[in-house]
Amino acid sequence: MPQMRHSHDARTGLNTMKTYLECFPCFVSQAFRAARIATDDPEKIKQVIDEVGMMLKDIPFDTSPPETGILIYSKVREITGNQDPYSHIKAETTKKALSLYPFLKDQVEQADDRLLMAIRIAVAGNVIDFGANVEFDLEKDINEILNKDFAVFHYKEFKKLLSNTNEVLYLADNAGETVFDRVLIETMGKPVTYAVRDVPVINDATRKDAMQAGIDKVATIISSGTDGPGTILKRCNTEFRNLYNNARLVISKGQGNYEALSHENRPVFFLLKVKCNIVATDIGVNTSDIVLKAAYI
Amino acid sequence: MPQMRHSHDARTGLNTMKTYLECFPCFVSQAFRAARIATDDPEKIKQVIDEVGMMLKDIPFDTSPPETGILIYSKVREITGNQDPYSHIKAETTKKALSLYPFLKDQVEQADDRLLMAIRIAVAGNVIDFGANVEFDLEKDINEILNKDFAVFHYKEFKKLLSNTNEVLYLADNAGETVFDRVLIETMGKPVTYAVRDVPVINDATRKDAMQAGIDKVATIISSGTDGPGTILKRCNTEFRNLYNNARLVISKGQGNYEALSHENRPVFFLLKVKCNIVATDIGVNTSDIVLKAAYI
Repeated sequence: MPQMRHSHDARTGLNTMKTYLECFPCFVSQAFRAARIATDDPEKIKQVIDEVGMMLKDIPFDTSPPETGILIYSKVREITGNQDPYSHIKAETTKKALSLYPFLKDQVEQADDRLLMAIRIAVAGNVIDFGANVEFDLEKDINEILNKDFAVFHYKEFKKLLSNTNEVLYLADNAGETVFDRVLIETMGKPVTYAVRDVPVINDATRKDAMQAGIDKVATIISSGTDGPGTILKRCNTEFRNLYNNARLVISKGQGNYEALSHENRPVFFLLKVKCNIVATDIGVNTSDIVLKAAYI
Repeated sequence: MPQMRHSHDARTGLNTMKTYLECFPCFVSQAFRAARIATDDPEKIKQVIDEVGMMLKDIPFDTSPPETGILIYSKVREITGNQDPYSHIKAETTKKALSLYPFLKDQVEQADDRLLMAIRIAVAGNVIDFGANVEFDLEKDINEILNKDFAVFHYKEFKKLLSNTNEVLYLADNAGETVFDRVLIETMGKPVTYAVRDVPVINDATRKDAMQAGIDKVATIISSGTDGPGTILKRCNTEFRNLYNNARLVISKGQGNYEALSHENRPVFFLLKVKCNIVATDIGVNTSDIVLKAAYI
């Protein structure tokens, strides 16, 4: 199946991470998992599965998975009536992450290369994810990632851009992961604008979740305006797009943001743990790898 | 979600293993995997996904998963035009299993309890499965299972029925696994009727596959008449049903046969490796457990 894997972006001339055949069964699994968290009513869960099943034929290959995520998760909200199914999970994960905060800070203090350790911590926080089809064990996974080699490691380029800018745009991913992001923000020592989702989608961080992690103490929190599980530029608000288009350094956390922005020829650094074969293939690494990748390389 | 998990069988008064909510995403994954093996054409694969997606709403909870399997795999055959997608895989797996045959026979020869070792070997062969959402490594998995404890172990009851009968009805599961079944058939030393699927479905054994494993040398091969990935009695032919209804000992291999016959209050012994949470929950064990379970206990 070599075809249909990438569509060609006429505007940038670059390949774009779009929907692969493998994504379709995953959409149904995601809908099921989200519905089961949103409600105990098996009739409603079945209705979500049925309606997402019927949607599959209308999902074009040339939209990114987070764009389909908008349809899926709004369907879950509509049918179950639950506007923020992961609310409790997000609060609990953030609380748990905050309990690790002193340990994380200590790791940075003791490191030879504090910036690198803080980047490791930020990517370790990306194990938190209730959207991907992967289970996680927070403490175990963090310790593993802190000692893992990066499969793509554009650290030199990152340091260079960081030293040349006075402002960093930071694209958040999941609630709880926000605490790990905070450690990186504090370590970079530059003014940071922290962009969160506009409305709850899966366990992605909103303003409320970022504030629970104390991000408001170390950065300016803004909404990107998106209602999808990724920074889909055409769904973002004008304020965010202006900021993004003028940014000299963007840190983009997680798979959803990668899927939405992988084609961008901009100073964006993708920092993520790879959680599915599709994203792994697109980057040219393996599932479970950790990545610090410049979009322009 | 305690409801909808079991339907109540008015005829037998027993719970019946039917379709659970978790099965629906799995149906789409199965369709995708089968379509990908049946064809290289991404348009056809997408059509299979789309049509199975639209089918979900019409699948009742009170049919067993193998009954839905009939619909899914016939859809794969219809759209891809490939009547036996797993033909090559089945032949290769059987060839591989045959190369292990001397080792398996040796294990039986050296065992203190030869019948038990042969049962272990037969269940080890059940790791071969291209329908379940589990990958397998034949040699590694076999060695693991040969040393694993059974989670349900009605061995005493099995031996008792075996000593009291002069004929065993053996319900086959996958091609390749057939070689492992042959070792058990040879060890039991009783006349065996070996029932296979009537037409190719996933990698389930048909007459041709059983013959490649040499089953025709040690047992009478018959077709159960079913076109599903499980012995769905109402889809079986009269000859098989008569045999089944009069059998004093039935060995039923694998998940598909379990799903189709779990409600039977008959001298059926289910011998399988559990490959999904749903079957695990139904039996009351964990995924990856091995089971020798009498239907009537």
